[in-house]
Amino acid sequence: MDKPIAITPGDPAGIGPEIIAKAFRDAPERTRGCFVAGDVGVMRRAAQFLLGAGQTDLPVVVLDRPSDALDMAPRCIPVLQIGPPAPCVAIGRVSATAGAMAAQSVLWAADAALRAEVAAMVTAPLNKEALCAAGAPHSAFPGHTEMLQARAAAFLGKPLAELPVRMMLANDELCTVLLSIHVSLRDAIDAVTHDNLLQTLQMADTALRALLGRTPRIAVAGLNPHAGEGGLFGREEIEQIAPAIASARARGLDVHGPLAPDTVFMRARARAGSGGEFDGVVAMYHDQGLIPVKYLGLDQGVNITLGLPFIRTSPDHGTAFDIAGTGRANPASLLQAVDMARRMARTG
Amino acid sequence: MDKPIAITPGDPAGIGPEIIAKAFRDAPERTRGCFVAGDVGVMRRAAQFLLGAGQTDLPVVVLDRPSDALDMAPRCIPVLQIGPPAPCVAIGRVSATAGAMAAQSVLWAADAALRAEVAAMVTAPLNKEALCAAGAPHSAFPGHTEMLQARAAAFLGKPLAELPVRMMLANDELCTVLLSIHVSLRDAIDAVTHDNLLQTLQMADTALRALLGRTPRIAVAGLNPHAGEGGLFGREEIEQIAPAIASARARGLDVHGPLAPDTVFMRARARAGSGGEFDGVVAMYHDQGLIPVKYLGLDQGVNITLGLPFIRTSPDHGTAFDIAGTGRANPASLLQAVDMARRMARTG
Repeated sequence: MDKPIAITPGDPAGIGPEIIAKAFRDAPERTRGCFVAGDVGVMRRAAQFLLGAGQTDLPVVVLDRPSDALDMAPRCIPVLQIGPPAPCVAIGRVSATAGAMAAQSVLWAADAALRAEVAAMVTAPLNKEALCAAGAPHSAFPGHTEMLQARAAAFLGKPLAELPVRMMLANDELCTVLLSIHVSLRDAIDAVTHDNLLQTLQMADTALRALLGRTPRIAVAGLNPHAGEGGLFGREEIEQIAPAIASARARGLDVHGPLAPDTVFMRARARAGSGGEFDGVVAMYHDQGLIPVKYLGLDQGVNITLGLPFIRTSPDHGTAFDIAGTGRANPASLLQAVDMARRMARTG
Repeated sequence: MDKPIAITPGDPAGIGPEIIAKAFRDAPERTRGCFVAGDVGVMRRAAQFLLGAGQTDLPVVVLDRPSDALDMAPRCIPVLQIGPPAPCVAIGRVSATAGAMAAQSVLWAADAALRAEVAAMVTAPLNKEALCAAGAPHSAFPGHTEMLQARAAAFLGKPLAELPVRMMLANDELCTVLLSIHVSLRDAIDAVTHDNLLQTLQMADTALRALLGRTPRIAVAGLNPHAGEGGLFGREEIEQIAPAIASARARGLDVHGPLAPDTVFMRARARAGSGGEFDGVVAMYHDQGLIPVKYLGLDQGVNITLGLPFIRTSPDHGTAFDIAGTGRANPASLLQAVDMARRMARTG
């Protein structure tokens, strides 16, 4: 890799900084070429949280520029200071300061990715209340996805509608792409249109093709119980979903469905070394896809934003204010996000 | 137990008869006191499907009355002939004859349960197309639940609206009760009202209390992503769900929520001997509850109808026409349904 991967610490009052420190400590191979785009003081404190009896210190190395991360010795935390050194924020508490720090790192990393100074960005979790407390413009965004979409659209000089994004969630067993995310279920139903689904299918195909190196087998979940049972329980399958699948197939995509939502995820699930029936499932709304991805636990899930002009992944969990500062948080999902970002940077 | 349990074979062209035969063959203790309410010829043929090299025959014993089932020797299939001996139906094919036979057994068993001649009924899967092909009145019902509700309401002389029923799905890890089942997702949203939810919570509490012998901890999933995020993505949580939870708590129920739908099932999931955070989750619509219940596989799930004036359970899978007649189908879910029916008959 000739460019580094930027990791943003997310809300400094949450578990983000300490899982990043753990990742650099426990997985030097997997974090090679990565650096933290954040605050040096926050990362020094996070390294302290991990100091148990007899454990050696994990040094924080301050970088001058992102590319310095490519030549780091293992078992240190390379940090590029973003903005002025920040005041100390209380662990496990919502604060405007923490929200503003988190957003500042994300926006810096997005700009670096847009300018192609980094190969990808991996984002530790934000706290939505803290973003709100930080005020405009951060308070306008429900999360990373929307914030990055807005930043990228502004960079490209495009209206938001011309930069559609989708959330992909993946763990070792299942990969799902969501047609819509942070809208009410009623609005999510309205978003199930031929065009939105066809766009989602193309984005899912592009991402999975890059990851797998072959044509991916994509399943489409129905919207209604039993995928509408032939129109008996809703007509979206007949009027929108099936035609979009036909359009996608006409373009050469290997798309199947609409399939009964209650069994399609089970069918796609890879188990004990054997793959599932499909490489990915396109879900019609947020919880349809996230319930099965999260059901087995949050330790391994990765969130990937499709449609951005750069690579962005993140762990599939929140700030976990209740255990922040204890050193107990698990870096597995973050490391999976780093792995996924590296894989996409190589193949994409 | 002083009354037998009736097992209906479901569609005779599907796997119902052979999983019943397997259950009687492999689990004599668990099927003690059970009998098949169906066709003797169909069950003789099912016993033949199981005959591998060197395996002894499994005799079908024809009963005169249900109570004969209480004194059967193990390793036989006790069958009470329902209606006249049926013509042979082709395995794995939809037919009006098969649909009518299946419905006839279900209606007989419902009547026997309503007259308290049996302690419970356990139903092997129906095929909806075959029911439709069988014509009125069977074609009017999407499945067992609605058919049994109508039969019980007629028996009690009540309008349907006064006999609300709910579907509960349970496996070793998770138990969920669905607010609505076979309606479009749009109609399911409209069904999320204070009164429907309160009714569902009371039915869930009653059923789980009987099964556990203590006050159950019940979680309520939100309807919208993140349970509405404080009204940002939908207001049903604020206007309907939270007030219904407050009403239920005022009546002494141990109900929690509304909780984020994408993690509540993970939180309720019991793992490796340790229980989850909740004994059951009330789901706002069909797929919200069924996706997690089915995600780990269909072998162990049990479907229980709440609200009927008798006990009815069933395995959580379909007729599997593709493997019917091969003897490969797994009776585990049917046996779980028998276990559950027995437990409810003892405690209820």
